[in-house]
Amino acid sequence: MAKTKVKKPRRPQALPPRGFRDYFGEEVRARGAMLAKITEQYQRYGFDPLESSAVETVEALGKFLPDVDRPNEGVFAWQDEDETWMALRYDLTAPLARVYAQYRNTLPSPYRRYAVGPVWRNEKPGPGRFRQFYQCDADTVGTASVAADAEICAMLADTLEAVGIARGDYIVRINNRKVLNGVMEVTGLLDPSDPEAKSAERGIVLRAIDKLDRLGEDGVRALLGAGRKDASGDFTDGAGLSDAQADIVMGFVSARRDTGSATCARLAELVAGSETGLAGVRELETIAELLEVQGYGADRAVIDPSVVRGLGYYTGPVYEAELTFEIMDEKGRPRQFGSVAGGGRYDDLVKRFTGQEVPATGVSIGVDRLLAALEAKGRITDEARGPVVVTVMDRDRMAEYQAMVADLRNAGIRAEVYLGNPKNMGNQLKYADQRKSPVAVIQGSDERERGVVQLKDLDLGARLAADITSNEEWKAQPAQREVPLSDLVAEVRAILGRDG
Amino acid sequence: MAKTKVKKPRRPQALPPRGFRDYFGEEVRARGAMLAKITEQYQRYGFDPLESSAVETVEALGKFLPDVDRPNEGVFAWQDEDETWMALRYDLTAPLARVYAQYRNTLPSPYRRYAVGPVWRNEKPGPGRFRQFYQCDADTVGTASVAADAEICAMLADTLEAVGIARGDYIVRINNRKVLNGVMEVTGLLDPSDPEAKSAERGIVLRAIDKLDRLGEDGVRALLGAGRKDASGDFTDGAGLSDAQADIVMGFVSARRDTGSATCARLAELVAGSETGLAGVRELETIAELLEVQGYGADRAVIDPSVVRGLGYYTGPVYEAELTFEIMDEKGRPRQFGSVAGGGRYDDLVKRFTGQEVPATGVSIGVDRLLAALEAKGRITDEARGPVVVTVMDRDRMAEYQAMVADLRNAGIRAEVYLGNPKNMGNQLKYADQRKSPVAVIQGSDERERGVVQLKDLDLGARLAADITSNEEWKAQPAQREVPLSDLVAEVRAILGRDG
Repeated sequence: MAKTKVKKPRRPQALPPRGFRDYFGEEVRARGAMLAKITEQYQRYGFDPLESSAVETVEALGKFLPDVDRPNEGVFAWQDEDETWMALRYDLTAPLARVYAQYRNTLPSPYRRYAVGPVWRNEKPGPGRFRQFYQCDADTVGTASVAADAEICAMLADTLEAVGIARGDYIVRINNRKVLNGVMEVTGLLDPSDPEAKSAERGIVLRAIDKLDRLGEDGVRALLGAGRKDASGDFTDGAGLSDAQADIVMGFVSARRDTGSATCARLAELVAGSETGLAGVRELETIAELLEVQGYGADRAVIDPSVVRGLGYYTGPVYEAELTFEIMDEKGRPRQFGSVAGGGRYDDLVKRFTGQEVPATGVSIGVDRLLAALEAKGRITDEARGPVVVTVMDRDRMAEYQAMVADLRNAGIRAEVYLGNPKNMGNQLKYADQRKSPVAVIQGSDERERGVVQLKDLDLGARLAADITSNEEWKAQPAQREVPLSDLVAEVRAILGRDG
Repeated sequence: MAKTKVKKPRRPQALPPRGFRDYFGEEVRARGAMLAKITEQYQRYGFDPLESSAVETVEALGKFLPDVDRPNEGVFAWQDEDETWMALRYDLTAPLARVYAQYRNTLPSPYRRYAVGPVWRNEKPGPGRFRQFYQCDADTVGTASVAADAEICAMLADTLEAVGIARGDYIVRINNRKVLNGVMEVTGLLDPSDPEAKSAERGIVLRAIDKLDRLGEDGVRALLGAGRKDASGDFTDGAGLSDAQADIVMGFVSARRDTGSATCARLAELVAGSETGLAGVRELETIAELLEVQGYGADRAVIDPSVVRGLGYYTGPVYEAELTFEIMDEKGRPRQFGSVAGGGRYDDLVKRFTGQEVPATGVSIGVDRLLAALEAKGRITDEARGPVVVTVMDRDRMAEYQAMVADLRNAGIRAEVYLGNPKNMGNQLKYADQRKSPVAVIQGSDERERGVVQLKDLDLGARLAADITSNEEWKAQPAQREVPLSDLVAEVRAILGRDG
């Protein structure tokens, strides 16, 4: 409860920094309720909570956001007195890497942890794009078994259903970076004996595949080949693949079949001759089998080679959860809601710190995206009801009004006395409405003499209340009744019971 | 699920920044459970949640920590691309001031909000002193009524009991800045017509009173008078009060009597002649009366003029919650646990932004202190039980083990398959122990043929498990039984039920 001193005559602006926002009442409650359901699932699957600090050394963070090359790009960083560079975490994975490396000798192995909290990105804020947002991750560190990947895919499905996304409204799509590498080998873009060669071309291919939705097959083929001139006339260099080579890449992206095994069979054809590629296909087969026996059919999880998001930096299986129902975009056109979670295997998580490779896999749920989806689905009901408001007719009887409130609270009913200026009853009732109060309690001197109180059911009387200015008018209203003071708690409970 | 790239050969240190720490499993759960109980009470009293961002503009924060004069002293600050200075919030009150000023036309008035979250202090870290810690605040903005202060004192008592501090183990102590000002007036240290004069002397008096515990009455008297030479020989200037003046100040600090009214009567004598002082006494009388009628007796809340903490910057009533039970300090000496929450009235919260005074009062609970108190009281039981661990005897039957886990999870039982290298059963059971797993499920090929599984009750067998290295040995053990696979869920539930 500190107070900030006033030093300068000039007045500060009452605004948050660019790209930051505040969350009020229901927004906070709804997010908290959703996160509670998510973490309950994580717990059920055997993951334990970890809360690392929001601040890490820049050195520990690795100075790099995924796919960002300039030091400190994208992070909020500053120097400590001892010159150490510190920064706000940009995700929950980099801190996990630091924690695991620090405590690897005492943590259980495999280490299964979940983490929930805000992360910060020093990016240009845009509409709906904020520089602080929540993530909710679960990771298994220290096992190479793809059973860990399969498990997280299953958990992702359970979690989405637990928060209120109906089966059929989402799909978990699974791919494997190794299969893509196999494709690269077969097309001659990756030489296992010289992995650095042609990395530029591979980058172009990756980015091209990633643009499939936007550019369509022809656009992607252009980028795989000679290059592409966009609408503005700008030319983007291509990867220089022959049509035959491009066919293989496009074949990979469109390799999905009706069943996991059929898809895997098709992928095996595409990467025939590549050890890595075939190993990747076998991993996908194992994942498909594990999900099958646990009852996760094609209606919930599928092998889908068109999942490229993240392929750039993951090392094995990758997965993402997509919401398949339609919403209207800004321009009023229907579109699929899209991805709300993604993850995969990243096997050199801890290597930066210790030198030894530590296999790991995990998922991150985009909390705000998922919350938006639940709102779009009408799954977030305005459960939270305001407090019962005991109004103040005689300000010198505050103690009596407080006693009424104490009785209500002790009965477990959310309640408060109106603490503003009691002069105007209309203001008090407007306040009660603004608070979404279900009941207003009123006791003037006359009621007091008769040992009664007036109970005003605001869920019924809300619309009228705004016009009320005098004690007389509200008495004329419906949705109001007089009860003995001794019955206050019982009568209020009756109204709450009826409404709720 | 981002991965950090490896650029430099040199390895980063796997450590958090100085003064930051990580919280694991139980620590996270215990704090979450306590915060849930606290916020439930805040809700019950009609407060609504607000979550502002961790980052504010330095200008909005006011650049000052309470009682710190240098800009940015004590805060982590950096410059945005557009040159704006940003900083991590150092408490939850400065952001409330900004939010209220920004939204004052749409927020209900009075605005009752609670907030929970980490705050950051750029201070020298010490043992047990961290640079990131949690606060949990409740404030009422926009009312001058001391009923708001009384209510928060009552809520503070209810909240402490709700989290597990027994009545009699805590006391809410209440004082009033105005009474101190009255004392200052009476002693001639404060001239209402020239409030800036003698502020230096008043500062000395405040700091002297604050040191009562440490220096004792004589030490404080010395500082009130000519000054004081400490053990090291350093001399601290005094306020230059006469003995008569010092008597008044000391009389204020020791004015507490058996009842609130008696204490107030004594205070009224001390500040006789000072309007401000007498107004302060009347406020204390009102608060005492309101608490009385709500049933908060002297065993829970008392008027206590020796409460000086915060008097420096509050403007009216101040209150703090102290835990009265004894714990052992570092040196093994018994001492009272001390303060876990504090707050008061600070009437120019919003003035910095809007120019108009907005009365406000609120409390902040020191979350980590209170959590430590609950631990000291043994109130935090290690409820959280590890997952049931299904061990892996034949790695190529992973799908079957996963199916067992799926059955357990679908029955609402926390469970997982051991995902590490299954070669050594001893390691698997060590893992289960490390996870505080209540039950290990084991099925070798022989059990499989017979359609059974082995259930190992680890709450019984834990101590032995660490020595086990072979499949044979654990079979010899007690606390293990063979059950039909079809009874897996029922039998595990039976063990959990018995232990839990």
